[in-house]
Amino acid sequence: MASARRIPQATVSRLPLYLRVLGEAALETGTISSEMLAARAGVNAAQVRKDLSYLGSYGTRGVGYEVGYLVREINRRLGLDADRRVAIVGAGNLGQALASYGGFPARGFHVVAAFDADPAKVGGLVGGAVVQPSAVMLEVLVDKGVDIAIITTPASAAQAVADTLIAAGVACILNFAPVSLSVPDHVILRQVDLGIEMQILSFYQHRVAARA
Amino acid sequence: MASARRIPQATVSRLPLYLRVLGEAALETGTISSEMLAARAGVNAAQVRKDLSYLGSYGTRGVGYEVGYLVREINRRLGLDADRRVAIVGAGNLGQALASYGGFPARGFHVVAAFDADPAKVGGLVGGAVVQPSAVMLEVLVDKGVDIAIITTPASAAQAVADTLIAAGVACILNFAPVSLSVPDHVILRQVDLGIEMQILSFYQHRVAARA
Repeated sequence: MASARRIPQATVSRLPLYLRVLGEAALETGTISSEMLAARAGVNAAQVRKDLSYLGSYGTRGVGYEVGYLVREINRRLGLDADRRVAIVGAGNLGQALASYGGFPARGFHVVAAFDADPAKVGGLVGGAVVQPSAVMLEVLVDKGVDIAIITTPASAAQAVADTLIAAGVACILNFAPVSLSVPDHVILRQVDLGIEMQILSFYQHRVAARA
Repeated sequence: MASARRIPQATVSRLPLYLRVLGEAALETGTISSEMLAARAGVNAAQVRKDLSYLGSYGTRGVGYEVGYLVREINRRLGLDADRRVAIVGAGNLGQALASYGGFPARGFHVVAAFDADPAKVGGLVGGAVVQPSAVMLEVLVDKGVDIAIITTPASAAQAVADTLIAAGVACILNFAPVSLSVPDHVILRQVDLGIEMQILSFYQHRVAARA
């Protein structure tokens, strides 16, 4: 690979954002300036140019970047052109919301398994997968060859779920349970705390209220 | 206020993370070292010490920081000791998941209104609020004095919802719809894209798979 410069973590985090902006822009235009892309993504233009340089894309002065090329290149670098087998553990509202979140199948994420500890939820559907009881999780994960697991259980259950996922060889975990998980070094763990954004917003609202 | 140093945006973003770690630590210990706090929060210890210095908290050499003090101080700075009136627009799975997400009431967030364009959802409950039709949104928002609104509608409806929120004087918006919104400068908008974390995870999974 000629352009296999190692992409910094912060750049990786911004690529999905650019991808969304580019997807919207593609409906209007074939090329986009770094300034326009920056404004819509909420970052500065120099940052955009630097990030995109890691993709081997430098744009054309006075014209900008070709939208279609960037979309394909970001998709390729993020591995969104490959199919991933996803399991959702926790078939409550959040698990359901994620499974039906627009764009999962289009980005290659296929929900192939779902689990819940609640017998009342077993047999239901989550994103096309039939909910199975926690007792069979280990064997089903192995059997389906799950690549990525999403934890949407209550906090109290999350570590035990993570341990089972790891025992089944799942190396990528996205955790929505509001608790810090311990995983071995080889496991890639991303943590999303839905409450955190509310707390950040609270800080700014607090400041607005104090001014008023 | 003696300690009203302006807190940088990046520090604000990490305070809720420290708060979660401290909440867990409080069950075990009365003091915590910056190294321990850093390890559990997934940042480095120098960063933790710098962030906490904005709270006027410098810890004690060989002892660390007092957990209870830090929790109170972060709560106060984030404005989590005040009550906020929250509206949820979009009563689907995601709206339901957010409304029942652990810790909202404990942090002072009270869901006082919920709306949906779907007549089948009107009259249902979201976090204790009765779902009302979109047609009455403007007057209900004003009437209830909503501080913060959460948008969990499909992408296609989100901008119109934001326009109504702004017309009603709501100055803080948390948007979960996967679309970039335009808002006036005085409005504080935070964007959460649930798909973005999956795409970031995809990048790392892709690399793991390429290695194997």
